[in-house]
Amino acid sequence: MEKFEFEWHKKLSSMVPPPEGGVGVGDDCAVLKNFDQRIVVTTDTLSEGVHFVSAEICLALIGRKAIAVSLSDIAAMGATPRYATIQLTLPKSFSLSDTEELMSGCIEIANRFAVSIVGGDTNRWDGKLVIGSTIIGAAPNEPWFIGGAMPGDILAVTGRLGGSLLHHHLSFEPRCDLAQRLSSRFKIHAATDISDSLTVDLAAITEASNCGAVLESHKIPISEDAFILARTSGHTPLEHALYDGEDFELLLAIPPQTWTEIQTSDLAASLFPIGQFVKKEGLVLRTERGDMLPVEIRGYEH
Amino acid sequence: MEKFEFEWHKKLSSMVPPPEGGVGVGDDCAVLKNFDQRIVVTTDTLSEGVHFVSAEICLALIGRKAIAVSLSDIAAMGATPRYATIQLTLPKSFSLSDTEELMSGCIEIANRFAVSIVGGDTNRWDGKLVIGSTIIGAAPNEPWFIGGAMPGDILAVTGRLGGSLLHHHLSFEPRCDLAQRLSSRFKIHAATDISDSLTVDLAAITEASNCGAVLESHKIPISEDAFILARTSGHTPLEHALYDGEDFELLLAIPPQTWTEIQTSDLAASLFPIGQFVKKEGLVLRTERGDMLPVEIRGYEH
Repeated sequence: MEKFEFEWHKKLSSMVPPPEGGVGVGDDCAVLKNFDQRIVVTTDTLSEGVHFVSAEICLALIGRKAIAVSLSDIAAMGATPRYATIQLTLPKSFSLSDTEELMSGCIEIANRFAVSIVGGDTNRWDGKLVIGSTIIGAAPNEPWFIGGAMPGDILAVTGRLGGSLLHHHLSFEPRCDLAQRLSSRFKIHAATDISDSLTVDLAAITEASNCGAVLESHKIPISEDAFILARTSGHTPLEHALYDGEDFELLLAIPPQTWTEIQTSDLAASLFPIGQFVKKEGLVLRTERGDMLPVEIRGYEH
Repeated sequence: MEKFEFEWHKKLSSMVPPPEGGVGVGDDCAVLKNFDQRIVVTTDTLSEGVHFVSAEICLALIGRKAIAVSLSDIAAMGATPRYATIQLTLPKSFSLSDTEELMSGCIEIANRFAVSIVGGDTNRWDGKLVIGSTIIGAAPNEPWFIGGAMPGDILAVTGRLGGSLLHHHLSFEPRCDLAQRLSSRFKIHAATDISDSLTVDLAAITEASNCGAVLESHKIPISEDAFILARTSGHTPLEHALYDGEDFELLLAIPPQTWTEIQTSDLAASLFPIGQFVKKEGLVLRTERGDMLPVEIRGYEH
């Protein structure tokens, strides 16, 4: 249940016991282990006014995002997405062609990632649009959990950060292909995707792994859009990279030897090293001059 | 996508191709076949004002229903429920204890059916309550599809019908146990659960199976609550049984030889024979006097 309101998360999570032989609430996906093979599942819900404003963007992009956020969770497990179900709760004002446009966005990205949409449930009501997706994937290799980072591991990210608010949160590419290639060839200790923010999601890894991390401020790759946002937002581009949510890049804890191997592989250019995991708990930001600054852990409030 | 608005169903379903090696949109569950074993998945969404009025009933019953409707879909495949995810879109007015009460209803019924709640997504917004569930099950035996009924098959139902509006739609027991026992021992040609109404869901079987069915009006087991409803509703008890939705009993197409075997088994008392599948398409109601009446195909409008 990765996106519970923070103050509620622990309380509600504690109501749900971990599944027999599997991992449940608290990671990007649940891992279902008492089938003959490892299956992962994740679910997300987007709602009007919280995750999108349907009057401002085309409906296909909303459908796309509903699938893409779940694909990103599958990528964060190093797994391969296979099947999706879609839950639509539609305003009564929605026409059939509105609904087809919404679905077309789901279908386009699902097809591109070889995901079959196998079912769903559609209802109309007098409220606003809610769209949910559940994606089921296969994990042929050991899944990447959030709690496996070790002091000394390289902290790497799969793309530039901080530009989500401009349009990246609608157009991002889930990192499924890269995750599958990494997972099949390299040992990764821990991973998650950046949905809440770099600091919040990194803290989720360090807390689950009982360690800390040092972020190298000058190594964090910053999106061009973060610079554009910074012109009017009152925040620096680095602040957008640290605290905005929905970048949907992967955060990876990579053992040093593996990092060396990756450096000489075709995947080197796909990963940015932005720091290191350390014994001491908490997050620290090291500046180019070597100053060690504490980092606030906060994300975008919808 | 079992609960699309009728006029939209075909159009939207046609946008979604069937999954590779599996069965998708149009049955109670999708069957995922390119794993090592057969896995089924179903999803349902309940929304305030459509499926429940939260001011009138306790939140635990709403949570219970969200899981129960999906369990009923799993039962309708002859499968065994294993894992669930829950999607909550909560009104801002909801307190943590409201949410715990809602979840307690989900958890109680999930535990009772040995289903692990493995994940979910919770958001708060300025709209009303939406609760979704996705259940993943195992189908060790051949799943029961909607399209396998044969002329001559006995049409059987697993319980009394017509009382859903009074409170059965909140308190019904999904027929998972009976389904598993039937599935492991007997050949069933086709099945679905009564969510829309006896006539609508039976018509779904006959249309998918290219056949028709004769309902024996005097054999249809009618709930006591249907008689209570009939005192004030302006409808007969039989009309409540034919046209009200959300009975969540199973409708089964059972080959005659199998029916004979079942009659001498411990499961005999759990099934009511209410008619027979026939070659001629369409639904007919045969009265006790032998009159053959056409049956309107309609369900409860939320």
